[in-house]
Amino acid sequence: MRAEIISVGDEIISGQIADTNAAWLSRELADRGIAVVGHTSVGDVADEISAVVRAVAARADVVLVSGGIGPTHDDCTREAVAAAAGTELVIDEAALEHIASIFAARGLEMPRSNAKQAAIPRGADIVRNATGTAAGFRVRVGGASVFVLPGVPREMKAMFQEGVTPLLPVQQRAIATRVLKCFGLSESVIAERLGERLDLDGVPKVAFLASEGVISVKFTACAATRETALGLIRPACAVACEVLGDGVFGDDEDTLEAAVVRLLERGGKTLAVAESCTGGLVAGLLTNVPGVSRHFLEGVVTYSNASKTRLLGVPAAMFEAVGAVSEEVARAMAAGVRERSGSDLGVGVTGIAGPSGGCDAKPVGTVHVAVAAAERTIHRRLTLRGARQVIRDRAAKHALNLVRVVLQAGA
Amino acid sequence: MRAEIISVGDEIISGQIADTNAAWLSRELADRGIAVVGHTSVGDVADEISAVVRAVAARADVVLVSGGIGPTHDDCTREAVAAAAGTELVIDEAALEHIASIFAARGLEMPRSNAKQAAIPRGADIVRNATGTAAGFRVRVGGASVFVLPGVPREMKAMFQEGVTPLLPVQQRAIATRVLKCFGLSESVIAERLGERLDLDGVPKVAFLASEGVISVKFTACAATRETALGLIRPACAVACEVLGDGVFGDDEDTLEAAVVRLLERGGKTLAVAESCTGGLVAGLLTNVPGVSRHFLEGVVTYSNASKTRLLGVPAAMFEAVGAVSEEVARAMAAGVRERSGSDLGVGVTGIAGPSGGCDAKPVGTVHVAVAAAERTIHRRLTLRGARQVIRDRAAKHALNLVRVVLQAGA
Repeated sequence: MRAEIISVGDEIISGQIADTNAAWLSRELADRGIAVVGHTSVGDVADEISAVVRAVAARADVVLVSGGIGPTHDDCTREAVAAAAGTELVIDEAALEHIASIFAARGLEMPRSNAKQAAIPRGADIVRNATGTAAGFRVRVGGASVFVLPGVPREMKAMFQEGVTPLLPVQQRAIATRVLKCFGLSESVIAERLGERLDLDGVPKVAFLASEGVISVKFTACAATRETALGLIRPACAVACEVLGDGVFGDDEDTLEAAVVRLLERGGKTLAVAESCTGGLVAGLLTNVPGVSRHFLEGVVTYSNASKTRLLGVPAAMFEAVGAVSEEVARAMAAGVRERSGSDLGVGVTGIAGPSGGCDAKPVGTVHVAVAAAERTIHRRLTLRGARQVIRDRAAKHALNLVRVVLQAGA
Repeated sequence: MRAEIISVGDEIISGQIADTNAAWLSRELADRGIAVVGHTSVGDVADEISAVVRAVAARADVVLVSGGIGPTHDDCTREAVAAAAGTELVIDEAALEHIASIFAARGLEMPRSNAKQAAIPRGADIVRNATGTAAGFRVRVGGASVFVLPGVPREMKAMFQEGVTPLLPVQQRAIATRVLKCFGLSESVIAERLGERLDLDGVPKVAFLASEGVISVKFTACAATRETALGLIRPACAVACEVLGDGVFGDDEDTLEAAVVRLLERGGKTLAVAESCTGGLVAGLLTNVPGVSRHFLEGVVTYSNASKTRLLGVPAAMFEAVGAVSEEVARAMAAGVRERSGSDLGVGVTGIAGPSGGCDAKPVGTVHVAVAAAERTIHRRLTLRGARQVIRDRAAKHALNLVRVVLQAGA
């Protein structure tokens, strides 16, 4: 089984964006036991797209094409793939109705240019687009199944998972994976601890991926059935959970904020957040989780000292004495928001995100995080590195992680 | 002049990393007037690499190959390109000495495996590697000049700039681009309006890219000099700005939040934000912008009705009468946060992000946004679609956009 991926778009071959769609599709196909042997990118030029599709289809069994099926004049993947298949485009009435219904739901008339998004090669099968207007499709080119998907990553991913996956050839071997999500331990510490107990290149294979402060430890095994492959993974995962302790916050698609909300639900607790340098990111992450409203009472973004005093009761004299970026102020913010909102737990974050505002004693990246509970307030001083966005993101995640650790300890 | 890029490595086709080398090389070549028409990625398999190099060289004038020239057993790009050129590998003595000297400088003996990094196809020209051990080279395959570079981005970039650039064919033309960033207009509406006034496939060429609610309109022109090319773009940009009006918020790398902060600075205005369904995202986006602290006074995330009343003064009776997701509450939130913080402008956002909580009269995706200024409060009702995260992100951007429009109108 040879699979290849074609990405269409001037923005890719001009280097305006890196092709993350091809990487994502490769990983998804590998998870389903299908190895990808090549990626090709081509601009929005019908003849070039046709030529690439024909050449790739001649050597592959499955071809995934993404991009160039939008409503504008430069989108020409439909025509190009139809030409490669030796046929013409026809309007699919169900797809046209779907597009019209999306505009109708917004109280808009469908622009004429969107009608072309319902055109598919004669004889092709529609692949529904649950999240956008463009219809995807599957068509035969030579001996290959060619799938055409949108280029917008969100739409492409949804269509792949819902529409393409059921149509992929069933594989004789199953690949199973499980990911443990970790925070607060470095990649090298995790690798060292696991390496002492597990053969990282053995069965299962263990790989590490660091992304935005979260380390994913991925276990992969291959067997005749998915159940057997999962059975190979389970003991290694148990060992990892043991040696990494509360460094592990979840698995697979889990997030720190979902882990926090799960623990709040389990304990029937409520939370309120007071943020300075993270400017709403902690609240923003928490409120990404559906159902959080029963547990998240309120958040305040107190950028100025005056607002820290007015909204949280931080004594004005404290700023004079120790500065706004200090353990004392973080603790006062956490306790203040807890008391005023009437929540079980309060979070306070204050720090210097940069690029300016740092000094020798408190360099850019100095962040104080505090979590106030009924009996006591826990504090951490962080020294973060990186650009403003990175420091803010990591500070927000450290705050969530501290809430998680406090809740796990039974606060 | 047709240029193409080939990236070699299992880590690319397996999706472990996105191919950022190809994007970088494309931008560099465009800056030198050479348009890249295709990217191809292939794994570390000699026969596959040879086949790809032959196929690409048959249709291109310049081919840049990166990756697979390291010292380990899986690196086979040298052999594969030599085979594609119909020749064999020979050791280049100067390159060998260069590698030995790097090890000597570290006080180490050269491992035998590194000697293969001095091998180049017979008749090829060496491209020196100032930052690493692997020798690059240029070789003729069919009618094309094929350059082979390392895959490590830092080494690849250095070799391209120092070694490859002087060997590239001198271009008689330069390519210039400019991007207009738009919000609040759909891609198809933008295309339709521009299509009435401009030839989108003419000079400059006009392309569209939708990303997370923001539409980028990209103008590209080619001329003898960069200045001339920019001169071709300018009038088309002016027409676009005219027909798109306040749908355009900036250019090139601009963001909505940066545009808002720029307008706050220009007007010497301050802002405060009250959020419900966006849960801190508006404040989070704004505080991404360095220097925002002079203009952003505070934010409150009032998820519960009680907090809307306590922190913003929204009358409790209003929730009974019209519900928390309503024009009235959005206006009261905006006015309340403005009044209590003493800011010039106040923002209120309330809505249903889903996945549950919707009803027929107020389906998931119903969001009310209000901006309160001294004289009046502006309100918009939005009907958004997508997953919870998408609805929240778009609602936050619509709120920022409404602030922008109000500030541009001189609030």
